Amino acid sequence: MGRLSDCFSEFMFEYDTPRMVLVRHKKVGIVYRLIQLGVLAYIIGWVFMYEKGYQSVDSVVSTVSVKMKGIAYTNEKNNSRIWDVADYVFPHQGVGSFVVMTNYIETAGQKQGNCTKDGVCKSDSDCEKGKSMEGENGILTGKCVEYKDTLKTCEIFGWCPLEDDYHIPDPPLLMAAENFTMFIKNAITFPRYGVSRSNVVPFNKSCIYHKDTDPLCPIFRLGDLVTMAGFDFRKIAVKGGMIVIGIIWDCDLDWSASHCNPTFNIHGLYGVDSLSTPGYNFRFAKYFVEDRTEKRTLMKVFGIRFDIIVLGMAGKFDIIPTMTTIGSGVGIFGVATVLCDLLLLHFMQRRNVYKSLKFKSAEDEGEAQMITVGGREKATRE
Amino acid sequence: MGRLSDCFSEFMFEYDTPRMVLVRHKKVGIVYRLIQLGVLAYIIGWVFMYEKGYQSVDSVVSTVSVKMKGIAYTNEKNNSRIWDVADYVFPHQGVGSFVVMTNYIETAGQKQGNCTKDGVCKSDSDCEKGKSMEGENGILTGKCVEYKDTLKTCEIFGWCPLEDDYHIPDPPLLMAAENFTMFIKNAITFPRYGVSRSNVVPFNKSCIYHKDTDPLCPIFRLGDLVTMAGFDFRKIAVKGGMIVIGIIWDCDLDWSASHCNPTFNIHGLYGVDSLSTPGYNFRFAKYFVEDRTEKRTLMKVFGIRFDIIVLGMAGKFDIIPTMTTIGSGVGIFGVATVLCDLLLLHFMQRRNVYKSLKFKSAEDEGEAQMITVGGREKATRE
Amino acid sequence: MGRLSDCFSEFMFEYDTPRMVLVRHKKVGIVYRLIQLGVLAYIIGWVFMYEKGYQSVDSVVSTVSVKMKGIAYTNEKNNSRIWDVADYVFPHQGVGSFVVMTNYIETAGQKQGNCTKDGVCKSDSDCEKGKSMEGENGILTGKCVEYKDTLKTCEIFGWCPLEDDYHIPDPPLLMAAENFTMFIKNAITFPRYGVSRSNVVPFNKSCIYHKDTDPLCPIFRLGDLVTMAGFDFRKIAVKGGMIVIGIIWDCDLDWSASHCNPTFNIHGLYGVDSLSTPGYNFRFAKYFVEDRTEKRTLMKVFGIRFDIIVLGMAGKFDIIPTMTTIGSGVGIFGVATVLCDLLLLHFMQRRNVYKSLKFKSAEDEGEAQMITVGGREKATRE
Repeated sequence: MGRLSDCFSEFMFEYDTPRMVLVRHKKVGIVYRLIQLGVLAYIIGWVFMYEKGYQSVDSVVSTVSVKMKGIAYTNEKNNSRIWDVADYVFPHQGVGSFVVMTNYIETAGQKQGNCTKDGVCKSDSDCEKGKSMEGENGILTGKCVEYKDTLKTCEIFGWCPLEDDYHIPDPPLLMAAENFTMFIKNAITFPRYGVSRSNVVPFNKSCIYHKDTDPLCPIFRLGDLVTMAGFDFRKIAVKGGMIVIGIIWDCDLDWSASHCNPTFNIHGLYGVDSLSTPGYNFRFAKYFVEDRTEKRTLMKVFGIRFDIIVLGMAGKFDIIPTMTTIGSGVGIFGVATVLCDLLLLHFMQRRNVYKSLKFKSAEDEGEAQMITVGGREKATRE
Repeated sequence: MGRLSDCFSEFMFEYDTPRMVLVRHKKVGIVYRLIQLGVLAYIIGWVFMYEKGYQSVDSVVSTVSVKMKGIAYTNEKNNSRIWDVADYVFPHQGVGSFVVMTNYIETAGQKQGNCTKDGVCKSDSDCEKGKSMEGENGILTGKCVEYKDTLKTCEIFGWCPLEDDYHIPDPPLLMAAENFTMFIKNAITFPRYGVSRSNVVPFNKSCIYHKDTDPLCPIFRLGDLVTMAGFDFRKIAVKGGMIVIGIIWDCDLDWSASHCNPTFNIHGLYGVDSLSTPGYNFRFAKYFVEDRTEKRTLMKVFGIRFDIIVLGMAGKFDIIPTMTTIGSGVGIFGVATVLCDLLLLHFMQRRNVYKSLKFKSAEDEGEAQMITVGGREKATRE
Repeated sequence: MGRLSDCFSEFMFEYDTPRMVLVRHKKVGIVYRLIQLGVLAYIIGWVFMYEKGYQSVDSVVSTVSVKMKGIAYTNEKNNSRIWDVADYVFPHQGVGSFVVMTNYIETAGQKQGNCTKDGVCKSDSDCEKGKSMEGENGILTGKCVEYKDTLKTCEIFGWCPLEDDYHIPDPPLLMAAENFTMFIKNAITFPRYGVSRSNVVPFNKSCIYHKDTDPLCPIFRLGDLVTMAGFDFRKIAVKGGMIVIGIIWDCDLDWSASHCNPTFNIHGLYGVDSLSTPGYNFRFAKYFVEDRTEKRTLMKVFGIRFDIIVLGMAGKFDIIPTMTTIGSGVGIFGVATVLCDLLLLHFMQRRNVYKSLKFKSAEDEGEAQMITVGGREKATRE
């Protein structure tokens, strides 16, 4: 018995289980069972079924490429013009964040030099040399010159003629943009599970996305997108705006990956109705050389900026969250015992009876010594 | 004894531990120990060692910049040309998502006007005015005009001459792109732990990345990347494609941060073999003014789009996941007792003996009253 | 009693609670209570209060748009020039990753042809035809030609004249960039909670961000950003650099969403002081046609690249993490019992007494049979 192997075999072959007091008490019993039932319902119903607590989750990694189609015709100042993809999409390469031009102010043939703009001065001393103008068009040369009849204004050095962006064309010049289409390719991977998917499944090449009738078509009409974002195309096209296209992959990989399809969530950010956010515009220039002089055509572009954001979570059965959920669930079961003990030992009429049944006292000193020795004798006799 | 301080000292100095039945039963004992061993092995081996359940994790925040090098020589239609970085990379600024041109169709000197394309019409009524053409090159002027011998076709208003992209140059014009190199700088931070790293460690400036021999070199040869992505350069260069370069930082910050180095994972998305995904191309235009007229050179660019995606997780010891793991582990231990009790009290021959040992009954009424009083007397006698 | 409904009502109305040994032992009691207190303090104080273990968390989804303002004046080689937004920002559209030019090397009027660069050769055999030059400017034509006095050098075919980027202008040409301002709009959403916020709250339009005095102003002065990133503007502007603007949303949505405001964290990546990272530059070209020949103006742009990175976590009360925390906390409480049992049953003087109180033995065979039968008799007598 004193040897190690005996100890080990004794350890291996013994099992200890707590001794319990079985209380047949309707009230406490029902409270106990109800708490247990609640905990069980919560763990199985809510955590396991609804929140899928038996799954580990992984975020999506994705790439997006976009291709626009459509042409617009403008006839500004009797100058007919066709705008195609190379003219109205910025940048060209088809990334997930881009601007589609819907309106513009063109300032053709600018070159570096001196020119004037509205404004009034009396003498050169009113025009501080080197100061930059309100509106950021150039710097003052320090001269006060005539520009209209007898009016005088400060001379400016910069790209001349200066841009006049006070009057924004309305209706917007590229109203035809409403019918442009956008083909979105989105390839995703859940790296943890090695699952890859694409939003481009075999589809009718002439389909157009519609929330209800064609929710998997990857081709979007610009006008539809604007409507879905809650804007009026006619209004937003004038000053521009910003639309976020969310592609949401919410996949349960305990099922076949072929059930894993995206949903689209379109919402607008800056519209014409919000005062603090004046649309969306930017300037760019087309440079050229004419008569040995560098010139540029400055474009102030108003457009709709699209940001394609891919969100996604995939869940799959995993032993660790399962065990953690079960483990902490068992822990919560213990709360039922704690609460019922509280009820039984402190609030029931016969609480002292229950106390004496539940607890066996082992005093530390004096009398305790005797009692516990007696207890031991008795215990060994058992 | 009735005073509060007594109560408190009594509470402070007392310890209660469950009373157990010690069952020496080989079968149940072994089942019990095996379950305990399994749980222990799972918690220590799997959750702690393998899955590092004692760590909290943080995702990576990163910036990428890229620099291409290399020149290509083309001799199309006896027109010698050198292509350098400014000519073949889009966009220029060196961001993590860009396209390297490998092939192109150039339509030089386009200007707004009327022109024709293949097609047949009999009279003006066949050409609906304002309708846009298949292939999106312009709109019909409404006239049916002669274009070749006696053939007639609809006149188109748009950028003329129209692009003819039916014949894609094969072999690709910039085959030399195979030898271009790409220098990738990637700086990362794990904000939660305040750890920053870069993939650019002191290195041989003439190194070329190789999976096995030089896995930390930040310079990649384009041809190698294409091969690693599973494509044939000669084929993909014709119509373009898409390659994802994953930079994966998987760091255990319980060790020195200098052990935290990236691995590269290259895979392709759209290749020439997949029918539904016709390569990668986009159009852009170089605008200029000639003879007071705005003209443009339209480029249909076929190229390889690279998306550099940085993924990363860092783990570091943290008390909370450690305690949560231990806590739920202790909970799972309780499962062993539940299972063995089930076995012992319901499936063993002498189950009634064990039941009587484990449970002490406290009936609610009548007889129970007497019994429990007796029980109490006995308990107090102990 | 044998019927199912009896069994069920028996099950429903009974409650079992473990029988305990109550040990009044100062040392063990204090150890027990201290451990319990520690666990309680850890769970309530640390996990619940400090780490907000009762909350579920969600990451941010965001869009960024940027608008630069400011003009610069250069007077290189007596050639006055104004640079405005369309000239110095790449790309133009106002995305969250862009470069602001601070210095440049312009090579005007390049066209495809033959030219020379410094270097020495003796005969054509020194110039291997088709080889690309160091520095990547073109390919050798195979001819050794005179270029300065009697010196000979290899002829190169490429964009001529060749770029000479050996001398970088210092002081930087666009020192005025220090006073440019950047207006950052950042709209975010926490999709799980349906909460959207923007960094643009009603603000004084002429405000400038300052960490302490105006931390919510969305307008940044470039010079300030460079200083906050730890660089010297005068130095970084020469060769370029990289600055990361982190916008951090750390929101507790148990409070009103209006308390959820961003903080800005600016840090630099590649500066002039670090030897291995030679600033930030890229090349781009402005193409034009002159005398029926395509020409280009090559710009080597040195600039500051800004990457705006949005980080964010929102926490909100959720029942599942709360229950998991409580459940695993209860589990950890069990550790106190395990430790104190170890102390009580193995290290105390009277450990045998406690053992006999805690454990009741049920042997498997022989004598055990008798004892347990006795035990049963006794139990039934109770």
